[in-house]
This record gives sequence, C-alpha cells and structure tokens, in this order.
Amino acid sequence: MSFFPAPLDNLIDCFARLPGVGRKSAQRLAFYVLRLPKEEAEAFANAILEAKNSVRYCNICQNLTDGEICQICASPKRDGATVCVVADPKDVAAIERSREYNGHYHVLHGVISPMNHIGPDDIKIKELLSRVNKGGISEIIMATNPDTEGEATAMYVSRLLKPLGVKVTRLAYGIPVGSNLEYADDATLFRALEGRREM
Amino acid sequence: MSFFPAPLDNLIDCFARLPGVGRKSAQRLAFYVLRLPKEEAEAFANAILEAKNSVRYCNICQNLTDGEICQICASPKRDGATVCVVADPKDVAAIERSREYNGHYHVLHGVISPMNHIGPDDIKIKELLSRVNKGGISEIIMATNPDTEGEATAMYVSRLLKPLGVKVTRLAYGIPVGSNLEYADDATLFRALEGRREM
Repeated sequence: MSFFPAPLDNLIDCFARLPGVGRKSAQRLAFYVLRLPKEEAEAFANAILEAKNSVRYCNICQNLTDGEICQICASPKRDGATVCVVADPKDVAAIERSREYNGHYHVLHGVISPMNHIGPDDIKIKELLSRVNKGGISEIIMATNPDTEGEATAMYVSRLLKPLGVKVTRLAYGIPVGSNLEYADDATLFRALEGRREM
Repeated sequence: MSFFPAPLDNLIDCFARLPGVGRKSAQRLAFYVLRLPKEEAEAFANAILEAKNSVRYCNICQNLTDGEICQICASPKRDGATVCVVADPKDVAAIERSREYNGHYHVLHGVISPMNHIGPDDIKIKELLSRVNKGGISEIIMATNPDTEGEATAMYVSRLLKPLGVKVTRLAYGIPVGSNLEYADDATLFRALEGRREM
C-alpha cells in the first residue's frame, strides 16, 4: 500500500524501473523532481522525449546521431580507410577521449551471446560487411571488450571479413597503464609477456 | 567535450543533476531511456509533468495530495482531535506504515535551520497555529526527527502551542526495536534509561 498521491507514486514507479535505482532512491528522485521549478521539470520531460525522438543510428557507422550521418562519418578530417569496430556507442566515446584515433567507427550494438539469445543477425554485422564490400576500407580494428563474448564476436567478424581482402587487427592486450603488476591477473600478464616489444 | 549527439547529452545532463546520480550513472540511465519502447519513454516524461502539475499541498494538513484535501484529512474514520506534526511527507508515509496511528497529520515541509537560512516563517508553522485556533484539536504529537534541528523545531512549535491550551507530546526516545545495546550510542541509552517504564 502506498501513502502518496497517485501521480507521485507513478513517478516513483518510473524512477524505480531505471537500472540501479532502488525503491528508496526512486522516492528521493521523485521528491527532488517535485521540488524543481516548473520549467526545469518540463525541461527534464522534454529532454526524454527529444532524446527518444531525435536520436537514431548513423546510416553509415550505426553510431548514435541526431542527423542522418554522425559527426565522425561526416567529418572530412577523418580517415575513412580505417574502421574501428566497437560493441557500444559508449566505447566510441571512450576511444575518442584518448584522442589517438582518427579513423571511422562501426557500432555493432551488442555482442554475440548465445546465453542471452543474441545471434550474429541481432547485431550490426551485415551493415559492416556491406560497408567493406563497397570498398575504400583497408583496415578493420576489432575493439570489442576483451571478455568471452567480445572475443568470440571479434573472432566471428574477422573470419567473415578476411575473405573480403581487408586487414583485420585487434586491440593490444597487456598491463593497463598506471596499474600494479602485483595485482595483474594471470591471463593479462601472459598476454603482456607474449606481446612484449623491443625498447 | 562530448561525443554523443546533443539531445542525448542534454538528457545525460538532466539525469546528472538528480541528487546522488553521478556522470557515469546519468549516462547509463540516459542510454536505458533511449532503449525503452517509445510508449514507455513517453509515459516517463508524462509522469514527470503529471506529478509536477497535479501534486499540491492539502489545504488542511499540507501533506502532498492530488486533490484539494488529502485522503487522510478526508477520511471519516480518522480521529481529527489528534494531530501528528512531521517535517516531511515521507515521515507521514513512515508513520502510516506502522499502522498504529489513526489521527491526522501536519506536514511542516522542513525544520527551522538557521545554518541553512530556514526560519519559522519558511515552514508551515502558521498553518498549524491557525488549525489549532479553529478548535477541535486536543493533542499535538511532535514527530520531527530526533536531531538538533528537529528538536529545536519541536521545542519552538510546542512553546507556541501550549498557550493555546492544547496538549503537546513528543515521540518517545529509546533503543530501537531489534537493535543491539552494544552499538547504542550514549545519548540514546541515557534517554532509554531516563524514560524506563514498569513492566
């Protein structure tokens, strides 16, 4: 049973459905929204509608955009011959933050995961193949996460790409910069030794 | 610098402004909303507008309601001669959950707090006085939090009420049910001893 008016309960329910937000937090958030000035509450509601209605996938790389083509694909300064394949738009943001990469991207929107009933046709693999088939791409960098599903997806996609005559690479494995050898796990240390380079 | 389309960034900003929600969580929440079915995203936006527009203060007790008068004040089953004074609508919900109380409430919407520039005129004290002046109330239970500001507010309000010929009581202090004496603080133990009752 609830002791709040119905519209407030409804708002608490909405917040409680968000990932990582429990009942108590949802209540705190709903009360915060109630205390907001009217314009700010309306701006919040509009931000939800606006994001939901205007954000779509880029026609080329499937990254999120509010136009037809994302800023990266549209930029004449970026090198379209290299394509970095990631699982999620957040990974694009992470790689962009490093300021090291000047090529294009391809966002798969997921990884192959039989456990979760996600097969190759459920993520944007065929869009990647048709990009490569159109030509002009010389290297594909597989940058899915270094976990089981990310590895399997990278392996699967690279096997489809190699017959098309494109160079397929994978992000380097190794010890993270600024970390401590003592706490590195065995698999990472093994890969770091295996991939050692001359200084 | 951001690497997401502007409407998405805007939504992340909105979430990041909520209390206890950091930048990373805001990003996760915004992506969750993006992936919601259109109807659910719209329902979320409407819940915000609806709660903001329809929830107001009860004309009598200042609790939250979506009508003129809240359910508790409107109920013929509740005893209007006893009024429990709380700082916050969430405290009404807490006391209602105990199912022990059958009187009315008065919500102050805050406590006197000189540190935060909240004086007696900034909370609903005069509304309480005018309720008592109208007659029909025999007991006021002060149920503000047992912290410095809650105590000071209870003391201040009780001094205003006593001359009006109404009985003013305060919630009992003591050890919480189910707790462990070993971990009880000195002040609570002192109050528990002081308020001991014959078995």
